[in-house]
Amino acid sequence: MVQLATLILSQRRFVGTARWVRWCSSEAADPRQVPSSSTVNSSISNRQELYMIDAVSPGSIFFLPHGTRLINKLVSFMKLQQMKLNFDEVMTPLLYRKSLWEKSGHWDNYKDDMFVVKSSRDDEKESFGLKPMNCPGHCLIYLRKDRSYNELPIRYSDFSSLHRNEQSGALSGLTRVRRFHQDDAHIFCTIEQIKDEINNNLRLVDTVYKTFGINDYKLLLSTRPSEKYIGELADWDAAESNLKQVLESTGKKWEINEGDGAFYGPKVDILLKDNFGKEHQSATIQLDFQLPQRFKLTYKDSQGLLKTPVMIHRAIYGSIERFLAILIDHYEGKWPFWLSPRQAIVLPVSNEHHLEFSQDFQKKLSGFNNDLNNAISLSKRDLFDVDMDSRSVGINRRIKNATQKGYNYIIVIGEKEINGGQIAVRNCKTNQVEHYSSVDELREKFVELTESFQ
Amino acid sequence: MVQLATLILSQRRFVGTARWVRWCSSEAADPRQVPSSSTVNSSISNRQELYMIDAVSPGSIFFLPHGTRLINKLVSFMKLQQMKLNFDEVMTPLLYRKSLWEKSGHWDNYKDDMFVVKSSRDDEKESFGLKPMNCPGHCLIYLRKDRSYNELPIRYSDFSSLHRNEQSGALSGLTRVRRFHQDDAHIFCTIEQIKDEINNNLRLVDTVYKTFGINDYKLLLSTRPSEKYIGELADWDAAESNLKQVLESTGKKWEINEGDGAFYGPKVDILLKDNFGKEHQSATIQLDFQLPQRFKLTYKDSQGLLKTPVMIHRAIYGSIERFLAILIDHYEGKWPFWLSPRQAIVLPVSNEHHLEFSQDFQKKLSGFNNDLNNAISLSKRDLFDVDMDSRSVGINRRIKNATQKGYNYIIVIGEKEINGGQIAVRNCKTNQVEHYSSVDELREKFVELTESFQ
Repeated sequence: MVQLATLILSQRRFVGTARWVRWCSSEAADPRQVPSSSTVNSSISNRQELYMIDAVSPGSIFFLPHGTRLINKLVSFMKLQQMKLNFDEVMTPLLYRKSLWEKSGHWDNYKDDMFVVKSSRDDEKESFGLKPMNCPGHCLIYLRKDRSYNELPIRYSDFSSLHRNEQSGALSGLTRVRRFHQDDAHIFCTIEQIKDEINNNLRLVDTVYKTFGINDYKLLLSTRPSEKYIGELADWDAAESNLKQVLESTGKKWEINEGDGAFYGPKVDILLKDNFGKEHQSATIQLDFQLPQRFKLTYKDSQGLLKTPVMIHRAIYGSIERFLAILIDHYEGKWPFWLSPRQAIVLPVSNEHHLEFSQDFQKKLSGFNNDLNNAISLSKRDLFDVDMDSRSVGINRRIKNATQKGYNYIIVIGEKEINGGQIAVRNCKTNQVEHYSSVDELREKFVELTESFQ
Repeated sequence: MVQLATLILSQRRFVGTARWVRWCSSEAADPRQVPSSSTVNSSISNRQELYMIDAVSPGSIFFLPHGTRLINKLVSFMKLQQMKLNFDEVMTPLLYRKSLWEKSGHWDNYKDDMFVVKSSRDDEKESFGLKPMNCPGHCLIYLRKDRSYNELPIRYSDFSSLHRNEQSGALSGLTRVRRFHQDDAHIFCTIEQIKDEINNNLRLVDTVYKTFGINDYKLLLSTRPSEKYIGELADWDAAESNLKQVLESTGKKWEINEGDGAFYGPKVDILLKDNFGKEHQSATIQLDFQLPQRFKLTYKDSQGLLKTPVMIHRAIYGSIERFLAILIDHYEGKWPFWLSPRQAIVLPVSNEHHLEFSQDFQKKLSGFNNDLNNAISLSKRDLFDVDMDSRSVGINRRIKNATQKGYNYIIVIGEKEINGGQIAVRNCKTNQVEHYSSVDELREKFVELTESFQ
């Protein structure tokens, strides 16, 4: 962790202020809008081939193989962390009848931002809304059976695709999109459980951000919007007062953002702070007394009485696409090994003489094999993203290309490597050549880097 | 593997023929339609709380926590296996302008099965189609840059949500759905590379199916439909002849299904065979000379000439929802440990005296911990699905409930376990109590079961 933080600090010093200053915190409240140095961001993405966009699907990202690896690592990482808080992942539909969105209040308050879906046949009279949020789907799962206080808190996590109809003129890169994913979760709990849930999730935010070398952030309480809100004023006041108490008890810096709450409740947003004082909204924890009432959610308390649970909407990354954009800028494309989509590349000097050895080496280093007859078990461990470039272009051009793409380790395989029993590996972070006596020794190094988040 | 096969055989004998005979192979060509003993299937799902459906989203499955674990394990398992064949996972948009679907031929040939999406604002004149297939999206990624023979085969894998507008009256459980997922992939290659690609993917089918104890299947060549097809007759004849040669060379049983090909090309479907001779379609490998022409895909051959690549559509599970339905029936809900969504459950006899010890035991056995201050690394290994039931209902009722839900191991924690230093664990497969001296010893057993696919 210390090394990572040092690396990031030194990168920032090197990069200077321009990149961060261009971020504009006032745009940050909507998860589709990322404060971004979008030029830097897209130039890194182009060079590293992370994602592309196309006019046939405005606002939806095509994640290329290496961008997909990044998204998968971010998702896997979050799944691991939130297991400590006993979140249960669910997968919910994308299409719901208009009547559901009327019930949830989205149709009245969020319709402009939704896509309407119709059957191409005439057999469905009602139109559907493509979901902009997971909350109504999770309420339906809650409603599946009678609930008891015994079961609460119930915590549903969901990584579904979400669609919000950003105006076409405003679309840009990863930063203003129409399709995105959240590390979304909804917690159903009693009023007494709110404080622990919020505290635990704030601790999760802290641990996750620290791992990425993001140590400075503050908490922002957004209160009832002056228009377009649902529910009673008294409920809003109670919820806001509740959140203030929780925030006060954390001992962290927090501020009030008047009128910027969601239409269903007040929220705590987390604002990242860069070295130059600029703030960037990412995580969110939102209290909701409205949806549980609209969906008539209940639980039986210890006295056997029916009560309405509280709902907490929560995301630690927020929009994963936006968080990725923040990380691309934050690391300036110099991914730490553990997160890198290009951990190592193997380059055979000559395809005629070194291809077979290189292919074998790549499989061994990545942790895979060529045995098509036996399945790899789910307990398979320590798999690494090791590519190979065996194109018939000169080795120097391929080394240069690999350097530009940001591989952490470059391994050239020639006569010496095949016969000499030693592997020379270029560590692109230090720009030094390191020597390893075997694939296993190099893999040990890779495991060590992964475990220490370097 | 031997034990698993024996278990399945004995299960089948016990269950009798009815379950399998109800499957109807003639319905199997469409991935939304599974030949299914849907009553058995949904009764197991209800008991094990795997998924639910709701009228607000007809044809879309809500995967509950334990169903989601199953889907995630199936997806993770496939990702591991196909890495051997160098597939690159990508993530592609769900919405594409109508003009793209016109170009691909879907609008003319597949429109009735598609959902049409409109912006709720007026700023988008053109409507969108919600994707029923991933192929056009993968063609767009291929088109991103000039391609050389050096790079082929290019293999894109994609686990996106797909939507097909099945008529509402026909929807049923996991078996006839509107939203589903495939272990989908598209291979772009030269004509010379077709044979190796198909052979390798057939070997992958073999290895994957064997792991689930499915050893008997046959290959079915589906040829040009008499209506609704695109492309020239000569291309179809060439593709069909090519596939026949490949099938012949595998040495496996294969048959011809005249006129049942996709509208863009002939295909090889894999039909599972149950003990009673009934066949069930799952995997598919489809040859396509049409889409590469429609999308003007090219590569530069070794002479510098522009050529058109061949496209192979491929899925090993096919629809993951359907494959899950097949597995629910196949195992009759008695999941092998490695795949089980309920590997173990911890039951404290009394919450007053045994809760803390039980919580600690659950975290240790699952491989997690309660340390919210330190992140878990991506190299974290051997994580197991261990639940806890600490509801304040009698221990016997909770044991009965855990047995009904199909937990592989049930661990009751009382005074004896806390003080005695030995853990008594009920193995629900053998219905024997096993004794372990430590959590680590039990975890070793769990690793062994996972690695041997028991």
